[in-house]
Amino acid sequence: MSDQTPRVGIIMGSQSDWETMRHSADTLERLGVPCESRVVSAHRTPDRLHAYCAEARERGLQVIIAGAGMAAALPGSAAAMTPLPVLGVPMEGKLMGGLDALLAMAQMPGGVPVGTLGIGRAGAVNAALLAAAIIALSDAGVAAALDRFRAEQTAAVPETPTA
Amino acid sequence: MSDQTPRVGIIMGSQSDWETMRHSADTLERLGVPCESRVVSAHRTPDRLHAYCAEARERGLQVIIAGAGMAAALPGSAAAMTPLPVLGVPMEGKLMGGLDALLAMAQMPGGVPVGTLGIGRAGAVNAALLAAAIIALSDAGVAAALDRFRAEQTAAVPETPTA
Amino acid sequence: MSDQTPRVGIIMGSQSDWETMRHSADTLERLGVPCESRVVSAHRTPDRLHAYCAEARERGLQVIIAGAGMAAALPGSAAAMTPLPVLGVPMEGKLMGGLDALLAMAQMPGGVPVGTLGIGRAGAVNAALLAAAIIALSDAGVAAALDRFRAEQTAAVPETPTA
Amino acid sequence: MSDQTPRVGIIMGSQSDWETMRHSADTLERLGVPCESRVVSAHRTPDRLHAYCAEARERGLQVIIAGAGMAAALPGSAAAMTPLPVLGVPMEGKLMGGLDALLAMAQMPGGVPVGTLGIGRAGAVNAALLAAAIIALSDAGVAAALDRFRAEQTAAVPETPTA
Amino acid sequence: MSDQTPRVGIIMGSQSDWETMRHSADTLERLGVPCESRVVSAHRTPDRLHAYCAEARERGLQVIIAGAGMAAALPGSAAAMTPLPVLGVPMEGKLMGGLDALLAMAQMPGGVPVGTLGIGRAGAVNAALLAAAIIALSDAGVAAALDRFRAEQTAAVPETPTA
Amino acid sequence: MSDQTPRVGIIMGSQSDWETMRHSADTLERLGVPCESRVVSAHRTPDRLHAYCAEARERGLQVIIAGAGMAAALPGSAAAMTPLPVLGVPMEGKLMGGLDALLAMAQMPGGVPVGTLGIGRAGAVNAALLAAAIIALSDAGVAAALDRFRAEQTAAVPETPTA
Amino acid sequence: MSDQTPRVGIIMGSQSDWETMRHSADTLERLGVPCESRVVSAHRTPDRLHAYCAEARERGLQVIIAGAGMAAALPGSAAAMTPLPVLGVPMEGKLMGGLDALLAMAQMPGGVPVGTLGIGRAGAVNAALLAAAIIALSDAGVAAALDRFRAEQTAAVPETPTA
Amino acid sequence: MSDQTPRVGIIMGSQSDWETMRHSADTLERLGVPCESRVVSAHRTPDRLHAYCAEARERGLQVIIAGAGMAAALPGSAAAMTPLPVLGVPMEGKLMGGLDALLAMAQMPGGVPVGTLGIGRAGAVNAALLAAAIIALSDAGVAAALDRFRAEQTAAVPETPTA
Repeated sequence: MSDQTPRVGIIMGSQSDWETMRHSADTLERLGVPCESRVVSAHRTPDRLHAYCAEARERGLQVIIAGAGMAAALPGSAAAMTPLPVLGVPMEGKLMGGLDALLAMAQMPGGVPVGTLGIGRAGAVNAALLAAAIIALSDAGVAAALDRFRAEQTAAVPETPTA
Repeated sequence: MSDQTPRVGIIMGSQSDWETMRHSADTLERLGVPCESRVVSAHRTPDRLHAYCAEARERGLQVIIAGAGMAAALPGSAAAMTPLPVLGVPMEGKLMGGLDALLAMAQMPGGVPVGTLGIGRAGAVNAALLAAAIIALSDAGVAAALDRFRAEQTAAVPETPTA
Repeated sequence: MSDQTPRVGIIMGSQSDWETMRHSADTLERLGVPCESRVVSAHRTPDRLHAYCAEARERGLQVIIAGAGMAAALPGSAAAMTPLPVLGVPMEGKLMGGLDALLAMAQMPGGVPVGTLGIGRAGAVNAALLAAAIIALSDAGVAAALDRFRAEQTAAVPETPTA
Repeated sequence: MSDQTPRVGIIMGSQSDWETMRHSADTLERLGVPCESRVVSAHRTPDRLHAYCAEARERGLQVIIAGAGMAAALPGSAAAMTPLPVLGVPMEGKLMGGLDALLAMAQMPGGVPVGTLGIGRAGAVNAALLAAAIIALSDAGVAAALDRFRAEQTAAVPETPTA
Repeated sequence: MSDQTPRVGIIMGSQSDWETMRHSADTLERLGVPCESRVVSAHRTPDRLHAYCAEARERGLQVIIAGAGMAAALPGSAAAMTPLPVLGVPMEGKLMGGLDALLAMAQMPGGVPVGTLGIGRAGAVNAALLAAAIIALSDAGVAAALDRFRAEQTAAVPETPTA
Repeated sequence: MSDQTPRVGIIMGSQSDWETMRHSADTLERLGVPCESRVVSAHRTPDRLHAYCAEARERGLQVIIAGAGMAAALPGSAAAMTPLPVLGVPMEGKLMGGLDALLAMAQMPGGVPVGTLGIGRAGAVNAALLAAAIIALSDAGVAAALDRFRAEQTAAVPETPTA
Repeated sequence: MSDQTPRVGIIMGSQSDWETMRHSADTLERLGVPCESRVVSAHRTPDRLHAYCAEARERGLQVIIAGAGMAAALPGSAAAMTPLPVLGVPMEGKLMGGLDALLAMAQMPGGVPVGTLGIGRAGAVNAALLAAAIIALSDAGVAAALDRFRAEQTAAVPETPTA
Repeated sequence: MSDQTPRVGIIMGSQSDWETMRHSADTLERLGVPCESRVVSAHRTPDRLHAYCAEARERGLQVIIAGAGMAAALPGSAAAMTPLPVLGVPMEGKLMGGLDALLAMAQMPGGVPVGTLGIGRAGAVNAALLAAAIIALSDAGVAAALDRFRAEQTAAVPETPTA
């Protein structure tokens, strides 16, 4: 595969999730990790999800990041259909700020794992960073990019707060 | 189809859910509604779920009752793959008594409905009663059985509490 | 009864719930299912609720959709007084986003079922879809309309997110 | 009416609630306030509830204490049908320890009040004490009994904890 | 005492609670029940609270309505210091919409009761209605006013929702 | 004052809290900090609480540890009546494991602080450690004892888990 | 050390927390307690946190106030690395209003205490007041300032609410 | 490094967590992934944690699984100090069944990711499976073992429930 073959598949349950999930894409781009973004609904497009997962490993994807809200079945359903690592990003929501989505991702039964990140934008950024950390295990370039990211992030924290 | 063709399909995510879901089967039996019970896991047997839902309507099923716990994706995944009415029964659980499962069923996105009952045994009984009420719309025998059930239930409430 | 006899009764605890519950009416209209909408408060108009439920089956209603907020007793009280299938739609609210209403509907005691949908607009749409799925069991026209709705819904999900 | 005419009506949604609600009866007995205890389910015996509330004021009842669990509609439904003060006692439960019942009682819409006590035995005792405080406003004997109860209760708190 | 002697004391923990608690005062005024409104903080003015409670019964007050937010100790502290019926109104808040205040009022230990109403404006209205129902037990004028209020409230519910 | 003058006052709302709060006393004893333990209920013995707080500073107390459950007003009420640092220990409870008590302590309004520890035994131990850390600021002996406690605690953590 | 040596170290996990934490600084300034404010992230600048805690006692700090949001590890991590009293201020947040941060601070395991204040601005003010109460134990000037603050606060509560 | 060099480091905050975390070790052993298990407390042994993380990558570890309860800072603190992927396993607990630990892991701020699994034993099993899925990206043997595990797991789900 070419260097630009997507290594991370970012899927989301709805177009409206893109406002959050684009932070996954932006972060991966900053780290030089090729990715693709797709709308795939576990509930409205189950066949599309099935097809996506069935081909994911063969197409060269290494990690799947799945963002969804409410009864957020997407990452769990993906994890049921592909052996690739699946990371979940719960959307913010009106019910306790998105606790429904967080629990629907994190509380998977034993046997089918989803690595769940935090709710909303912070979670979307962190899903990309965790995906990069996974890829970095076998890609020195990504490892170096991630180390730089972390060092710059540390350096960017101001010593004293400013008004 | 024969009179004994199952009209309600009771599916559950795990053998351990049977302790709760058998109350759905028992209640349907009492009302004279033929049903079948299957273990079908959204996460561990996605292909079995796909096959079950694909054939459900053709096989004569009219309602699907799905019991599951934790990140309880089963009823929602079933509702994504069959146009039949799907009712969800959340299992009791350690996290806030099963709130995770309740939210994972009830908080479906617009477009794919799950009618969610209460947590545990009461919910399993009620799923059967609601399924019977649905079937009763076009089956006078079930309607009469349900009316009898409700009348007996009312009569069985004692006037005064006893020690 | 005529083709326009309402088959679904949409009731709500307050005029202010109409902003949400009109999505039930709109969805049923799109599917060609005649319905009626009424304000009936379990707490402020208990006699009206009693009368509504007492006549519901005779008037040809097949499903009752009840929307309410806070201590949302309406669907449960309706289910106590009619054998028809009752679906509940919890209103959004300030207390944990409407969790109070969701629990007040879903956690019915064994014997009197309410099929509870999600909170707010998504729940109102889904209540209509579930009512249509129930009616579709004995009405091929509604079944076909529902199948079309679901197919169009699937087709409307974009492949890739757009900015 | 005679001195033994019940002045407080203790109603509960289920026989199983008596284990908790008998503490209301015991406390009222200790304070010399005549009461009666009835099983009245908002969901399984709505007609019985209607009859009970319709006659309550005429029969000389001054306060209604209603205990219920889960989607605890009993006190709110009673308050909808009688102008008497209604106090609610939520039962303990598996879902967050009974939070569902507490919210279903406390979160009444504006216009129909329920004075909600705490969950379980402490709430049952306190419902009786609050009923007594209400009756004490026009009954010096009950007022004196309540003052004695409170004084004894204060005196019974030990100064130092004992192993 | 004169007819205008306050019979209900409305106390609140902070000036900022008045926006909510004035609905208690307005409702009592509508029912013809004289009341007074005071700012009394359990935490910032404990001596004022002590003095207020010590004199409440002698001054002719019959019910105390206490509104507070967050760690809402006011109604419980009042109930500890006066035998009068105490009703609590939890303020809305940022933590789960005011659940903290609701629990801090409702979950009183056995022996010292607070009748807790719902959160915010609905609770403030209902506290006034419950206070009036209590006073109505020995005041036919208030009883009649309350009956009128309830009848008008029922009549004001529209039959059908309007856009 | 003598070396044995209590420097920490441990108060608790009920005798039943002693099972938890004795861990505060035991920990202070281990650190050589004299303390006293008293049952003082904010709700059942408000005068005792008032007297205790009024004298606390003069009697040489430097920190008050207050344990309580449910609508746990004790630490906040104490903080309202003494300028000494007040630390709160929420008791375990049936409602969400004691969340009611935790919120009733932590969510104090601005102006009257309570330093809240965790729920139950861990919180009781930590309240003692925090009290010792406060006293250690002006007592080298306690500072040394606390440093030893922490060093021993660190050393006691095993390297590898054992079956 | 000079009179202006900071005695309270205010640390916060992010520049964005300053909007809340400046209320700690403002309150300490009003009470005449010298303090310093630093941005120190447990997660992004762990070495800075380590260095800060290692020197805190030697530099003359007596209390550390740590504000953080979400998985708010800052106060607990600080408490692990310094024997000084550590007070935690949870930031408001979207998940249940900041309950995540409150629990992440309060629920420390036995052995390493954090005194947790309320969420947001009230908590920030109260952390300063509690720090001052701690320092007041060995500083008569701060004790007097704190007494004045409390007296003024009490006097500032209006008797009656104003529109 | 030898084939037996640990590739997954299982760390836990307390010896008592081993009862849960040994399921991570058992699952990794079944999949043929070498691992090591250590007790490392973020709060009681911060230096040990620092040393462990500083050496982790150099020692050949590829994934860190961190189990902790309550204010579960361990995985987040580890993620702050190593670029390796860190997976978190929240322990069951008394406060809402462990919700405190789940939130303390999942709700990490943007920049430092933790992939959080479910609470308790299921989460421990799933952390091992996710670690294996990560390692499988560059180890065909582990990939094959994981595929076998998943196939066997699917095959082990019975078709029908048994009493």
